[in-house]
Amino acid sequence: MRTAAIVGTGLIGTSIALALSARGVTTHLLDRDPRTVRTAAARGAGTPDSPSEPVDIAILAVPPLHTAAALAEQQARKLATVYTDVASVKGLPSARIRELGCDATTMVGGHPLAGRERSGPLAARADLFQDRPWVLTPGPETSEAALNRALELVALCGAVPVLLDAHAHDRAVALVSHLPHLMASLTAARLLDGEDYAVRLAGRGAQDVTRIAAGDADLWADILAANAAAISEPLAQLVADLATTADALRRLADGDPAHRDGALADLAEMLRRGGAGHARIAARRSGAWTALSVSVPAGDQDGQVARLLDDIGETQVELEDMVFPETTGRRGDAVRLMVLPTAARPLTDALRSRGWAVRC
Amino acid sequence: MRTAAIVGTGLIGTSIALALSARGVTTHLLDRDPRTVRTAAARGAGTPDSPSEPVDIAILAVPPLHTAAALAEQQARKLATVYTDVASVKGLPSARIRELGCDATTMVGGHPLAGRERSGPLAARADLFQDRPWVLTPGPETSEAALNRALELVALCGAVPVLLDAHAHDRAVALVSHLPHLMASLTAARLLDGEDYAVRLAGRGAQDVTRIAAGDADLWADILAANAAAISEPLAQLVADLATTADALRRLADGDPAHRDGALADLAEMLRRGGAGHARIAARRSGAWTALSVSVPAGDQDGQVARLLDDIGETQVELEDMVFPETTGRRGDAVRLMVLPTAARPLTDALRSRGWAVRC
Repeated sequence: MRTAAIVGTGLIGTSIALALSARGVTTHLLDRDPRTVRTAAARGAGTPDSPSEPVDIAILAVPPLHTAAALAEQQARKLATVYTDVASVKGLPSARIRELGCDATTMVGGHPLAGRERSGPLAARADLFQDRPWVLTPGPETSEAALNRALELVALCGAVPVLLDAHAHDRAVALVSHLPHLMASLTAARLLDGEDYAVRLAGRGAQDVTRIAAGDADLWADILAANAAAISEPLAQLVADLATTADALRRLADGDPAHRDGALADLAEMLRRGGAGHARIAARRSGAWTALSVSVPAGDQDGQVARLLDDIGETQVELEDMVFPETTGRRGDAVRLMVLPTAARPLTDALRSRGWAVRC
Repeated sequence: MRTAAIVGTGLIGTSIALALSARGVTTHLLDRDPRTVRTAAARGAGTPDSPSEPVDIAILAVPPLHTAAALAEQQARKLATVYTDVASVKGLPSARIRELGCDATTMVGGHPLAGRERSGPLAARADLFQDRPWVLTPGPETSEAALNRALELVALCGAVPVLLDAHAHDRAVALVSHLPHLMASLTAARLLDGEDYAVRLAGRGAQDVTRIAAGDADLWADILAANAAAISEPLAQLVADLATTADALRRLADGDPAHRDGALADLAEMLRRGGAGHARIAARRSGAWTALSVSVPAGDQDGQVARLLDDIGETQVELEDMVFPETTGRRGDAVRLMVLPTAARPLTDALRSRGWAVRC
């Protein structure tokens, strides 16, 4: 890949342009708004000049409802030999691409799973896609050459390609992106009703739950609209869960002791399923724990454990859990320390250098 | 304050004990589970020995449903001259405290607004409450001496005291803590239905929205149960919003062009209210932006702006927005840079040292 064109120099388009330019690809920047092109060019994302011949790939980085029209327009002027887009919904744009009679052989649908709350070319970063999934949804007509060119784009941006059917993609993002966005917005909207003193009590929990509600409302309305059918299914299931939860809270608020245990069990069950669901997406970050055994000499065991905790504190390693000798069934010999796998080696070395007998 | 007792050496109790011990208060640690007392003591949180005379303050750091029973038990054995608790719900415990006939003059309800996803004494930190709100809910019988002792505790932990009526507190935390927790759990529970490839696409957005769903399910069921009445009101409003949103998505999925604009407007309106609600709790962090004007010499203005952006890049200051000369109405004279207030001075100095004429 020697040349590329970015159609739409917002956050995503400019970030791709920065990544490609850094890898030596001559990148042309196009946008209806000449000021955003100027800003992107000033940041070193590429040139504001139009290409004199078709580029190797054009990336359509426009809102999902405009993808098909942008493809038709750029194919008509022969901007590129291969086209891809970055729309976060894939079914509706590909249907409209067929309706508009675009050339489907040179088009590969794409969706880099990366973003920031801030938008526009000033927020762009060359490393925005590093190690992130980047879905490609080639259709039955897509040529192998076009798919390989799109895979090269993904590799140049440092992302991990994931090939998916367009509708499987849409169901997946409905679950992991669009539904969470809706819930964040609905929760955040309630904060408008709070007194000032109430809002002052909000902590990191409320901030995290509502953070993505800060996104561009019109852009997100377009995204949700474009994926409305796929969102409706998990939303209906969430509404059913919510009704059960609201009913449990009502029974608890009524204070009838006969309903209390059943209602509490319903609440706890829902919360447990939430914890299990979260664990599926948190697993990559936390991983399983690694256990280290540290021998604690007999006599003044409490003092020994205190000294061990002091020594661990100095290493800055965070302890995930700790199991005392009496609960391991082997008395008086070892304390088991649970740590993240990456911390096991540094902690072992640090404790051994302080005189502790450590087994991994 | 010279002496204190912590009843319940979990995350919150041990964190308070660490803060008090660091300020020279002799702190006694009590828990039904001797191992957590041992862990807390080993971390330097205090002594596992019972006090020989009533301490200056006892902190009941037990789950909200056990607060009243713990107060009755500790008042009967004269553990302290003043009592406070850390329960995240205040109405129900104070009603039960009255039912049990406890001495209300020596009791001040309390709720430090701080926490971590991890629990237990190993996760405790002396600075957990630093600069966080700590609500105190003195009742009509609470003595001034008891309130002042509780205020001293808050100050020793580095927190900011907030005096509130117990019911106002409960309505506030329903909105900023309990409702977000419910929504995080309901959203996270849906992830159990996702295929593996779908869950792999989850990014920081989904992780943030669902992070607090990782909390202890039984503890949170107790918290939600204890505040069920206050949660029901904002929950009912959220359910109404959700019904409107689900209806808009259904109209969009149907694809009838006559309904399209109305449904899109409903979605955008809900998302805008979410953004405005989030802004109320994000305001403290982001603040208003400060504008700096930088003169750009005439001639090769694009090259000058590129050089300016390079120089800004080297300062590591993040630009929130940038306004080009033509849009300010004064041609060819200045670029306006929007930055966080805290970044204005460092950026001004850095740019001046690079030869730019900057006005604040």
